[in-house]
Amino acid sequence: MTDDAVLRNLREFVAERDWAQFHSPENLAKSVSIEAAELLECFQWSPDFDADRVNEELADVLTYCYLLADRLGVAPDQLVLDKLAKTRVKYPVEKARGRSTKYDQL
Amino acid sequence: MTDDAVLRNLREFVAERDWAQFHSPENLAKSVSIEAAELLECFQWSPDFDADRVNEELADVLTYCYLLADRLGVAPDQLVLDKLAKTRVKYPVEKARGRSTKYDQL
Amino acid sequence: MTDDAVLRNLREFVAERDWAQFHSPENLAKSVSIEAAELLECFQWSPDFDADRVNEELADVLTYCYLLADRLGVAPDQLVLDKLAKTRVKYPVEKARGRSTKYDQL
Amino acid sequence: MTDDAVLRNLREFVAERDWAQFHSPENLAKSVSIEAAELLECFQWSPDFDADRVNEELADVLTYCYLLADRLGVAPDQLVLDKLAKTRVKYPVEKARGRSTKYDQL
Repeated sequence: MTDDAVLRNLREFVAERDWAQFHSPENLAKSVSIEAAELLECFQWSPDFDADRVNEELADVLTYCYLLADRLGVAPDQLVLDKLAKTRVKYPVEKARGRSTKYDQL
Repeated sequence: MTDDAVLRNLREFVAERDWAQFHSPENLAKSVSIEAAELLECFQWSPDFDADRVNEELADVLTYCYLLADRLGVAPDQLVLDKLAKTRVKYPVEKARGRSTKYDQL
Repeated sequence: MTDDAVLRNLREFVAERDWAQFHSPENLAKSVSIEAAELLECFQWSPDFDADRVNEELADVLTYCYLLADRLGVAPDQLVLDKLAKTRVKYPVEKARGRSTKYDQL
Repeated sequence: MTDDAVLRNLREFVAERDWAQFHSPENLAKSVSIEAAELLECFQWSPDFDADRVNEELADVLTYCYLLADRLGVAPDQLVLDKLAKTRVKYPVEKARGRSTKYDQL
């Protein structure tokens, strides 16, 4: 489970700035996409990367993901575990092993 | 700190399928962007949304973020806390309160 | 059909800088996503927008789309017309009229 | 200049379905990002790609770009040419030749 300390810190940061008014689920979803592209930009022309820059951009994506999860009243880690249980079924080991094929073409 | 249980589960899932070979940082960054857009698609034509669908797509974004963090040897929650400390400086409460203006225009 | 003048200008711009070496289809596809997110950023917190900024970001998305089309040897406008013919079939007027529902749920 | 035939076809397609009501600039910008990610998905795990699939996804990105340009009252090709003139200044040949470095670090 994501530590309460992180969510508590994020909530305090947002409350101090009175920013909850901007954090509709739709705006947070846009923000996740925007930050994901800044992460991708670290790899725009090459697979080589600057680790510090990647860490910063990944932090931004995670921050908006956590804010959205909190807005929806769900725990990030629980979401991941629940989805993983479904993905295990969609990608059975014997079929998916060593292949990057999408489940509907396995 | 993100519970070790989540990372342990993700690592096991990947190892069973021999998928680490596909999980270069670049490919994981692409995957974060791809899943972020599927999350955004839940809000394509309206701010109204199907909560179950949003949860599933958010889980996918988080999953690739966690896999990338693990690949880089960093803890997701620590990344968020470190970045938050910097963002607090970029957006001082007295300037940023109640405004969605970008820091370089505050 | 997209005017040859645009493609001729783009090709000259790239050739002068010896940038074709960076313009693999994969890198151009990443670039389209990165610029699309900068366009989205114009609408991050509100549907209101700065028209000049939107025009600039839209230009960047289009530029990488044109470069990718040219790399693949296809004409942008022909691509759009060919796809439109298929979309007309997927979204018949009588079913799709006034609804934003995805074709597989019509 | 993008041929009027393409815009005429797109406008007719939208009008027949009464879809202009969904095509706010914000929704079209979201749509560009969503389709850009589907294009990126063609390259998720490898630089190798299926040309037909790439063409289809690129067509979708272009379609939403053209619809957004039309909604804003600007011609796609003119946008690209205007931006190219600015980019020529930001990336002078003598500095940018053979390098993928961003202009602010040249």
